[in-house]
Amino acid sequence: MNKAKTGQLWGASLGPGDPGLITRRVWELLQNNDIHWTYPIRRKGAKSHALGIVTRAGLNLPAEQTALIFPMTHDVKILASYWLRAAETVLTKLQAGQDVIFLVEGDASTYSTFNHLARAVKGLDKSINIETLPGVPSYNAAAAKVSMPLADTDETVAIVPAGYGIEMIERMLEDFDTLVLLKVKPLLDDIIDLLQRRELIEHAAFVEKIGAPEERIIKDVLSLKDTKVNYLSLLLVRNPHRQRGEIIRGCRQIK
Amino acid sequence: MNKAKTGQLWGASLGPGDPGLITRRVWELLQNNDIHWTYPIRRKGAKSHALGIVTRAGLNLPAEQTALIFPMTHDVKILASYWLRAAETVLTKLQAGQDVIFLVEGDASTYSTFNHLARAVKGLDKSINIETLPGVPSYNAAAAKVSMPLADTDETVAIVPAGYGIEMIERMLEDFDTLVLLKVKPLLDDIIDLLQRRELIEHAAFVEKIGAPEERIIKDVLSLKDTKVNYLSLLLVRNPHRQRGEIIRGCRQIK
Repeated sequence: MNKAKTGQLWGASLGPGDPGLITRRVWELLQNNDIHWTYPIRRKGAKSHALGIVTRAGLNLPAEQTALIFPMTHDVKILASYWLRAAETVLTKLQAGQDVIFLVEGDASTYSTFNHLARAVKGLDKSINIETLPGVPSYNAAAAKVSMPLADTDETVAIVPAGYGIEMIERMLEDFDTLVLLKVKPLLDDIIDLLQRRELIEHAAFVEKIGAPEERIIKDVLSLKDTKVNYLSLLLVRNPHRQRGEIIRGCRQIK
Repeated sequence: MNKAKTGQLWGASLGPGDPGLITRRVWELLQNNDIHWTYPIRRKGAKSHALGIVTRAGLNLPAEQTALIFPMTHDVKILASYWLRAAETVLTKLQAGQDVIFLVEGDASTYSTFNHLARAVKGLDKSINIETLPGVPSYNAAAAKVSMPLADTDETVAIVPAGYGIEMIERMLEDFDTLVLLKVKPLLDDIIDLLQRRELIEHAAFVEKIGAPEERIIKDVLSLKDTKVNYLSLLLVRNPHRQRGEIIRGCRQIK
């Protein structure tokens, strides 16, 4: 066997769906025919969102590419076995001297499978060079689309899966000027009630599948009451009634 | 006077400093010689960070471009007068049929002057078409650089200017798996003490001027004790000791 130079692994963020949000750095790597493409799918034969973004960008898929399965489960044992299998698949290519890119929807550091893949690859072979290429997160794209600032000077932002419940969401209103509520589907009606009670319904916007062809933007959040929404949906909530505490700025505090 | 078609205004996010993080969409607009460039500076004659990114990308500045002054003050009256002046400058071009791009470091929805400019322009002329183009925020680039996930499945993230104080930062550790602490300069020693006390010092990373030529990455955060850091610096803190509550997933809650 040839002693080939070990390949490099990139976690390449593609942004949330609009191919225009792919960064120059990732775009350049996608033009390189010597790099092997990998991407996550939920189960065998399923469609890849990440691959969909690249396809919409007008790129042709390479003749050879590898789908890696990351199943939709919260069972850590099952997940770990898939992470290991994916890492072994990638490592075989890397150790054969092949460079590998893992395509990631959104940003690779934010709710992404890349973290698990990278950790598992490092666990098998510490010497592998792994680089994470950051991208535009879905809620930044959502904020831009609805012209709502995520944060202004000295403001605070909380990013919270809504499933933690209404009590936690309400508690956040004390300390945060913007709430990014993810996966709102199971609690949407209760959140709408909360927003009405706290007079925030006009300061909220609902965004589903941002940047994808099925994108849905709803500024009249109240109209969503008693309707069904997609799992990939979020609410941006601005909180202008918040009473802010003092803030220390500039120079190092005097003790 | 000719009745010209009104121009369009873009708030173009450039990412935090690395020209490779500019998105394809913004890059395309930067190639268009018919669009007038504007960018923020702190005072007359000051350097523009945003313009620095574009210059490092290898682009030549257009012969005509306009610096807009956004002073470093917290006096809202003074700020508002500069926002208005900047908006009037931009509006004159737009009303003459000129398309205008406003260059933004980082992401235009996140701690950016673009929000104020856009609001002031809309205040003067509601008919103006304004589009915000999202970009990579500094803390996403920082997380990628230090290979630290910002959020894994079901995790929560708080983005907080550190100046709100140690008590608030400590309170955040109850509800958040990741803290992004911005502008840590005035409180850095106290934050380091807190991180030591809560056994989090090994789960933190310090990042200064990410993506700029002066970038500084410090993983041994303790080594920063009693040293001076730049104003444009942040701490990423992972909080693995957090006790999480129950989370509701998937289908709509049954009432």
